[in-house]
Amino acid sequence: MYYAEPLARLIEELTKLPGIGPKSAQRLAFHILKTDSEEAKKLAEAILLVKEKIKFCKACFNVTDQELCEYCRDSKRDGSIICVVEEPRDIVALEKTGEFKGVYHVLQGAISPIEGVGPEDVRVRELLDRLKGETQAGQRVKEIILATNPNIEGEATAMYIAKLVKPLGVRVTRIASGLPVGGDLEYADEVTLGRALEGRREM
Amino acid sequence: MYYAEPLARLIEELTKLPGIGPKSAQRLAFHILKTDSEEAKKLAEAILLVKEKIKFCKACFNVTDQELCEYCRDSKRDGSIICVVEEPRDIVALEKTGEFKGVYHVLQGAISPIEGVGPEDVRVRELLDRLKGETQAGQRVKEIILATNPNIEGEATAMYIAKLVKPLGVRVTRIASGLPVGGDLEYADEVTLGRALEGRREM
Repeated sequence: MYYAEPLARLIEELTKLPGIGPKSAQRLAFHILKTDSEEAKKLAEAILLVKEKIKFCKACFNVTDQELCEYCRDSKRDGSIICVVEEPRDIVALEKTGEFKGVYHVLQGAISPIEGVGPEDVRVRELLDRLKGETQAGQRVKEIILATNPNIEGEATAMYIAKLVKPLGVRVTRIASGLPVGGDLEYADEVTLGRALEGRREM
Repeated sequence: MYYAEPLARLIEELTKLPGIGPKSAQRLAFHILKTDSEEAKKLAEAILLVKEKIKFCKACFNVTDQELCEYCRDSKRDGSIICVVEEPRDIVALEKTGEFKGVYHVLQGAISPIEGVGPEDVRVRELLDRLKGETQAGQRVKEIILATNPNIEGEATAMYIAKLVKPLGVRVTRIASGLPVGGDLEYADEVTLGRALEGRREM
C-alpha cells in the first residue's frame, strides 16, 4: 500500500466516477486533502443531498426536486408540442437555444441492442401514454420532435418511436442533421455532409 | 436556473475541483444521481474521512494517518539517505521503481516567485533541521537526492537547497535528466536532448 488507508479509499471511490482514471483520482484526492475542511464538507453534503432530494418528474422524467419539473409546471409552455430527448442534460442544451417553448419527454437512454438496452428500458411506453392521454392543460399533443442524438442508437430510437407514434395521428418531426454553424466543409465527415445535402432548403 | 437546486449545487461544488470544468461536473453529477445511494454515501464519507484522518508525517511531511509515515517508521530503510520531493505523490512514483531504500522529505511545493511561493513556503527549513540533527536510527544523513521536478520551479528549488546543504558536508545529488526510456531521439525537445548529452556516461 502506497497511501494511508483513508487516502487510498478516497482515491478508490473517485476512480469509480466516469472519466476519472487513477491519476486524476489521485490529483482530486490531493486537492481535497489540501482544501479547507469546510469546502470538503460542502462537497460531501452536496453528494448526499442530490441523492436525497432529486427525483424524476412524474410527467416527463426530467430531474427535479418536486413532483413535476419546472417545464411541466410552467403554464406558459405549450403542452401540445413534446420534445423527446435521451437525457435531462439535453434539455439544458435545448433551453439554451431559447427556441423551444413546448414541453419535454426524457427517455433516460437510447435503444442500443449492443449494450442490451431494449425499447422497454427507455421511457417509450410512458411517452405513448402521454400522447394517448391529455396534456396537463387539457389540450391534445399535436407534435412530437424527436431530439435524440444523431448517432446509431439515437437514430434507431427515433425511428422506433416514429413508427409507434404516427398511427396515433400525431405529427412526428426529427431535428435536422447537417454542418455545424461555423464549421468547415473541408473538415466535415461524409455522412454529415451527405445529410446536409439531403436536408437542403430553398433560399 | 436550468437544474433543480440540489443538482445545481452539486455541479457547482464539483466544478471547484481541479481539471473539472462545467461539462465534466455535469457528467459526474448525473453519474452520482444514477448510481445507487450506497455508492454515493461511500464517496461522501471517504471525502469527510480523508479530511479527518490524514495529517502530515512529523519527520518528512508525507501524508499519513499516524504520527510518522510508513517510510519513516520502517526500520529497514536507510535513514542516512534522504530523497527530497515536491509532493507526496512523487514518493509513490519513486517507490514504484523499487530502486530507493532511503527515506523521504516532502517539500509540499516548489519555489516559484511567479506564483508567490518563496523558500519559506516550502519545507526547506525543516529539511535543514533534519540534516543538522540526527536521523531516527541515530546515524547522520550522508546524502540528499534532490528529486524535484525537472522544470523551472523544480530546478530553482533544487539549486536553492543544494546551496544551503553543501556547506553542511552532506553529499547532494540530483536525479538525472535525459531521454525517457522507450523514447525517440527525433521527437525529443532540444533541452532534454542537451541534458542527455551533458549527462552522458562511460559504457
